[in-house]
Amino acid sequence: MAVGPDNFPKMHSVKGVKLGSVAAKIKDWQRDDLLLIELSEGSRVVGTFTQNAFCAAPVHVCKKHLSEADARYLLINAGNANAGTGEQGMSDALRSCELVAKVVGVSANQVLPYSTGVIGELLELSKFEAAIPGAVNDLDETHWPRAADAIMTTDTRPKGASEHFTIDGKTVTITGISKGSGMIKPNMATMLAYIATDAAVSKDVLQEFVVAAVNKSFNRITVDGDTSTNDACMLMATGQAGNENITDMASEPAKIFFEALVNVFKKLAHDIVRDGEGATKFVSVNVSGGQNTQECVQVAYAVAHSPLVKTALFASDANWGRILAAVGYSGVNELDVNKIHIYLDDILLVENGGRAARYTEEQGASVMAQEEITIRIHLGRGSAEDTVWTTDLSHDYVSINADYRT
Amino acid sequence: MAVGPDNFPKMHSVKGVKLGSVAAKIKDWQRDDLLLIELSEGSRVVGTFTQNAFCAAPVHVCKKHLSEADARYLLINAGNANAGTGEQGMSDALRSCELVAKVVGVSANQVLPYSTGVIGELLELSKFEAAIPGAVNDLDETHWPRAADAIMTTDTRPKGASEHFTIDGKTVTITGISKGSGMIKPNMATMLAYIATDAAVSKDVLQEFVVAAVNKSFNRITVDGDTSTNDACMLMATGQAGNENITDMASEPAKIFFEALVNVFKKLAHDIVRDGEGATKFVSVNVSGGQNTQECVQVAYAVAHSPLVKTALFASDANWGRILAAVGYSGVNELDVNKIHIYLDDILLVENGGRAARYTEEQGASVMAQEEITIRIHLGRGSAEDTVWTTDLSHDYVSINADYRT
Repeated sequence: MAVGPDNFPKMHSVKGVKLGSVAAKIKDWQRDDLLLIELSEGSRVVGTFTQNAFCAAPVHVCKKHLSEADARYLLINAGNANAGTGEQGMSDALRSCELVAKVVGVSANQVLPYSTGVIGELLELSKFEAAIPGAVNDLDETHWPRAADAIMTTDTRPKGASEHFTIDGKTVTITGISKGSGMIKPNMATMLAYIATDAAVSKDVLQEFVVAAVNKSFNRITVDGDTSTNDACMLMATGQAGNENITDMASEPAKIFFEALVNVFKKLAHDIVRDGEGATKFVSVNVSGGQNTQECVQVAYAVAHSPLVKTALFASDANWGRILAAVGYSGVNELDVNKIHIYLDDILLVENGGRAARYTEEQGASVMAQEEITIRIHLGRGSAEDTVWTTDLSHDYVSINADYRT
Repeated sequence: MAVGPDNFPKMHSVKGVKLGSVAAKIKDWQRDDLLLIELSEGSRVVGTFTQNAFCAAPVHVCKKHLSEADARYLLINAGNANAGTGEQGMSDALRSCELVAKVVGVSANQVLPYSTGVIGELLELSKFEAAIPGAVNDLDETHWPRAADAIMTTDTRPKGASEHFTIDGKTVTITGISKGSGMIKPNMATMLAYIATDAAVSKDVLQEFVVAAVNKSFNRITVDGDTSTNDACMLMATGQAGNENITDMASEPAKIFFEALVNVFKKLAHDIVRDGEGATKFVSVNVSGGQNTQECVQVAYAVAHSPLVKTALFASDANWGRILAAVGYSGVNELDVNKIHIYLDDILLVENGGRAARYTEEQGASVMAQEEITIRIHLGRGSAEDTVWTTDLSHDYVSINADYRT
C-alpha cells in the first residue's frame, strides 16, 4: 500500500533515552500498543500540539504538566484517542500519569500522556494499570524500532529517522519516530512524533527549533485535509552528548544541529505521507515566485487538497486543467494567470494562461507513471517559495475510511 | 446514481424567452450540446460569476458584453469549457458571439457566451458556425426541458425548477435550469444556471436579488470543494407579465417575488448536489448559534468538505468523532467545545465536549440509513445560522474522476 520501498533506517540510540513497550490490549489485538519513554534527569522537553478546538484530553493534560514540571516520562497508547470524552477523559488522562508515577517514583506531572486511535471511547484504565509495570521493565536504549511499531494505528509501516553528526568534536545523535496515516493535515500536527537528541540545547532554543522544524516538515503535509484532535510533536534533549550547551540560534553548532534536525523531521513527515491512507503516489507540490511564504503555502494546499487533482494523480492522468483550476481558486489576490508556469517534474504544462505550446500528452503521461511526482508552480510575482507533500486519492482511501469502525 | 427520485418538474414558459438546441457534436456524442436562449427586447439580464483567477475565456467575454450592451441572446455549449486556452480562447469566445449576431441580426456584444466541459481544449468554431442556424430555427418558448438536457456534462439528470405566482393580480413565472455535478464549490459559482422571469423588475433590484438568492443556494453547496473556472448564474427578466415594475426591494411585490426566486434557486442548487459525482446521500449541514453568518458557513464547510466525514456518510456510519474533529479544526476563534451540541436529524450526538449521555449507536445508525440527512451543529455563542448542502464521498466519485478524460 505505502509508496516506495520500506525505508526504516538503523536507529541510533540516544544517550539518556530508554523506551519500553507492551501489549496492553487496548484494542482486541496482540501487538504492543503502550509505549513508555524514559528521559534522564535534566532533560529538556518541548513540543507543538494540535490546533483543533476539540483537542483531546491527553493534549490538555500534557500541556499542563509541561508547564508545571520537568518531564521524565512519556506514556503513549494506540487504539484509543481519548478524544471527545469530556470530563471523564480528562480525569482518565491524569490518572494514567499517576499510574506511571506510582511505579517509577516521580510526581504525576513529570509524566506526559498521549493517545491515538478511535475518537469518543473512554480509556479502560485497568488495562493501563496492568500493563505499565511491564513497560517499565522493558525500558532500554535500543528499543526505538519496537517503539515505532507500538504507536501505529492505521499505519502500514513503522516510521523512523536517525542522524549521527559531530558538534564540538562530540558525536551527537538525533533519533525519532512518528505515526500517522489518516486525519492528516497537521496544524500542528495530525500525528504523533517523538524526536530525541543527546545534544545539550537550552530550552528556549529547543522550543524555537521545534517550531521551525515543524514548519518545514509536519506542518507541510496533508493526506485528507482533516486536522486531528490528538496530535503532538515532541522534541527531547538529554544533554548527554558532551557538547557545549547550545544557547544561540545563530551559532555554528546550532546551524549544524538544526540542519540534521530538519532532516529527521522531514523524513518522519514524508514517511507519514508515503503511508497515507490508500496512497499510491508521493507528491511534492512546490510553489515558487510568490510574494510571501503564506501565499505559496495557500496555493500548494489548494492543489494538494483538491479531490479532482488527487483522483487524476491516482489515475496517472496529467490533467493540468484541474491543477490550473485549483491554483485559480486558491484565494490569492490579484494572481496574474499569464505569469504563472506549472510543471510536472521538469515538463512545462501551463504558460500564458493555457497549455504550454510545446507540451504533449505523452510527456505528461511519462511523469504521471512515476510513483513520486513533483508539481511545480511558479507564480511570477515574487521570490518566496514553499513546498507541501501529499498523496493521491484512491479507491482504497474510500474503502479504508468507510470501514474503519466496523 | 443521483440521490432521491428524479424530480424534473413541469416547466412553465416565460413570456419573452425562447430556447433552441441542437447537436453540434462538440464531443463525439449524439445529444444536443449547443443551446441558444433568446430574450425579448427590453429584457434585463444580471449574473454572478466564478471567482476563480483562471476564469475561462467566455466568462471574460460575457462580463464585457454585459457591461457594454443589452443582452438579447445567450449561447451555451457543453463538452468543452474553453478554459485555460489563453488568447486563442478569448478570440474564439468572441467569434462565437459574432456567429450568432450575424444570423439573428444583433450586435456581437448583445450575445453572451458560456462553455462547460473539459478544460484546456480549443473550441472548434466550424462546428458552431454549422450548428447555430439550427439552434435559431429551434427557438421556442416551450423548450425548457430540452434546454436542461443540452447543457449537461457529467450530470446524470437534467435540472429544472419553475414557479407560478401572482403580483398585482398578474400571473408571474420564474423558470430556470442548471447543470453541474463535479468541481462544485461555487463562489459564485461552480456550475451554470439560467433563470428567467417575465416579471418587470428594475435592473438594480434584479442585481441585488441574484446576489441574495445565490447566497442562499448556489453559494451554499459543495460536492468536492473545487471551484470551477466557468461558472455563471444568470437571471433574466423580460418584463412581459404586466406587473408594475419592481423598483423597491422592501415592497410587498418584491418580497413575494424574492421568496419564489429563492425557491427556484434552491431547487436548482439542491439538484446539483443530488446529482453530485458518486453521490449516495443528500446532506444538509446546518450550523446555528454562531456569532455571525460567516462563522456558521465556515464550520458548515469544514464538515461538508471533510473526506473523513464524507466517507463515513457513504458507509452510513454515525462517526460523530469525525464531525466533532471537523468542527474543531474549522478555524473559528475561541470555540467553547463544552457549549457545542451536534445532532443527526433530531438525535443528539455530542454535548459537553463528548458523546451525549443518552446517545446510542442504534439511534445514529437509523438516521444514517436514510438517503437524506441533516447534520445540525449548535455553537452556543450567538444567534446566527446558515446551511450548506453536500454529498458523501463514494467509490464512484473516485471512479468517475479517475476516468473522466479517458
